[in-house]
Amino acid sequence: MKYVIGIDGGGTKTEATAYTIDGEEIGSGYSGPGNLILNGEWAIENIISAANECMETTNLVYNESECVFIYAGLAGIDGADVAKAEKALSDRFNVETKIVSDAEIALAALLKGDDGILTISGTGSVCYGIHEGKLERAGGWGHILGDEGSGYYIALQAFKRAALEEDECIKKSRLTEKLLERLGMKKVKEIKKFIYSSRKADIAALAPLVAELGEEGEENAVSILREAGRDLALITWRVYRKLGFNSKVKIGISGGIIRRVKLVRKEFEMELAKYIKEFIIVDDDVSPSKGGYYLAKKYITN
Amino acid sequence: MKYVIGIDGGGTKTEATAYTIDGEEIGSGYSGPGNLILNGEWAIENIISAANECMETTNLVYNESECVFIYAGLAGIDGADVAKAEKALSDRFNVETKIVSDAEIALAALLKGDDGILTISGTGSVCYGIHEGKLERAGGWGHILGDEGSGYYIALQAFKRAALEEDECIKKSRLTEKLLERLGMKKVKEIKKFIYSSRKADIAALAPLVAELGEEGEENAVSILREAGRDLALITWRVYRKLGFNSKVKIGISGGIIRRVKLVRKEFEMELAKYIKEFIIVDDDVSPSKGGYYLAKKYITN
Repeated sequence: MKYVIGIDGGGTKTEATAYTIDGEEIGSGYSGPGNLILNGEWAIENIISAANECMETTNLVYNESECVFIYAGLAGIDGADVAKAEKALSDRFNVETKIVSDAEIALAALLKGDDGILTISGTGSVCYGIHEGKLERAGGWGHILGDEGSGYYIALQAFKRAALEEDECIKKSRLTEKLLERLGMKKVKEIKKFIYSSRKADIAALAPLVAELGEEGEENAVSILREAGRDLALITWRVYRKLGFNSKVKIGISGGIIRRVKLVRKEFEMELAKYIKEFIIVDDDVSPSKGGYYLAKKYITN
Repeated sequence: MKYVIGIDGGGTKTEATAYTIDGEEIGSGYSGPGNLILNGEWAIENIISAANECMETTNLVYNESECVFIYAGLAGIDGADVAKAEKALSDRFNVETKIVSDAEIALAALLKGDDGILTISGTGSVCYGIHEGKLERAGGWGHILGDEGSGYYIALQAFKRAALEEDECIKKSRLTEKLLERLGMKKVKEIKKFIYSSRKADIAALAPLVAELGEEGEENAVSILREAGRDLALITWRVYRKLGFNSKVKIGISGGIIRRVKLVRKEFEMELAKYIKEFIIVDDDVSPSKGGYYLAKKYITN
């Protein structure tokens, strides 16, 4: 029986999953980083290793090896030698191979290979969309230039609010008090130490505290979270416009902030409704590797 | 003849200058970093070494050693053992010694020891003021939390403008074109590489390009520079309010952006006039060590 392997290669790990033609998961394999630009040759080794492990587990079930397509979505393909990586995979496994960006495969996973948009907000934020073969992006400029609506951005707004209260001699808000309490600090001035000695993810890790206070109605937290929702709607609208969508569109959402922080998600949908007449939100906890299955299927059903 | 030594100890160097009671410069000495928190014992050694060199050059002119006061302004005194550093200096030179922050000495240098405000905008930005012995600050939260109106902030706004044009599919502005040209890049997407591989100062180094385009009337540059001026007026107003000034106040300005970028300075003064009835801008290229002279003089004239 035929099957395809979908691969999701990111900055920290690579996942390869085998799917039957009906989309049933029948095997999987994992390895290290699969970012083509950052990890180079090592990324290719990791991708091969994950695919290899995936085939081995698959063969246990199928007792045969009829892999007909490998479809990989990798981080860092801009400027990388994609053809070389494709050849390395297809030579090794003697199977048709295609490599696209991690964005494209994640988009396909959530939208089942259909056209549409994917808005991501976790530690960072970005929006991608695909329409009639054309892929467009908005946002995704990283934490210095952008990442509006992300966990990092939300936490940073809370810290900025604390700094403003200090500069304006305003009484500390509950948001600021809780922020200091969490960091074990007494004075707002001390937040500088934390900010300038922490990594982006450590700062973003305070977004859930803002979310919690937002749920309780703390006004600063509420306003920060609503703004995040509006920012995410804005990048989504930009992609929608860039791609010239005009009918009902599927909008996938991914990442803890947009999916699970109620105030962000509610504001995102409300704001989006101002721009886009008809849309369906797709919110599934699907592995990006499944996108490889949907994309490969377009080739093998012919 | 009596003289005093003023010391300015910063993150990269320490400067010690000897002044006669009339404020005439009669000797100087230099050494490495003098940030008490960051450089610890080494900072104290550097401060002593700069003062030592300063005394030696002074003795050549005076042929006697009648230093009556050492007044130092050092970076990183918050949380540092200032008393210990003061004792080390006074023991070594057998002279009365006082250590304050680098902000206080810079303020005294520009305002000749009078009460007033100092607004700084170079790579970063901050505002300090002193009134009846009380020192207050606004801004100065660093490039992640703040630094509005600084060279870093100005350059970053230009990059953000480029990113927005890309996301909105707007024709590249002249500001964006010049920015890409300067960096030897063709596509706006490439700016990410620069931003995420550069230090704060490398990014701030593009502020003069924005200033140049602002002079030529490029509308994006003009709006970024004017906003910077307004941001600097705002932190100045906050310090003014914190200190409860109500009569005519001296406002010193320091740093290349606020002093030499015409659009920033003009907007700063115009905006400030909306908040503060009477003020005098003090714009002098005076060494912060001179602040040590003004402050020491208050002790020795008694």
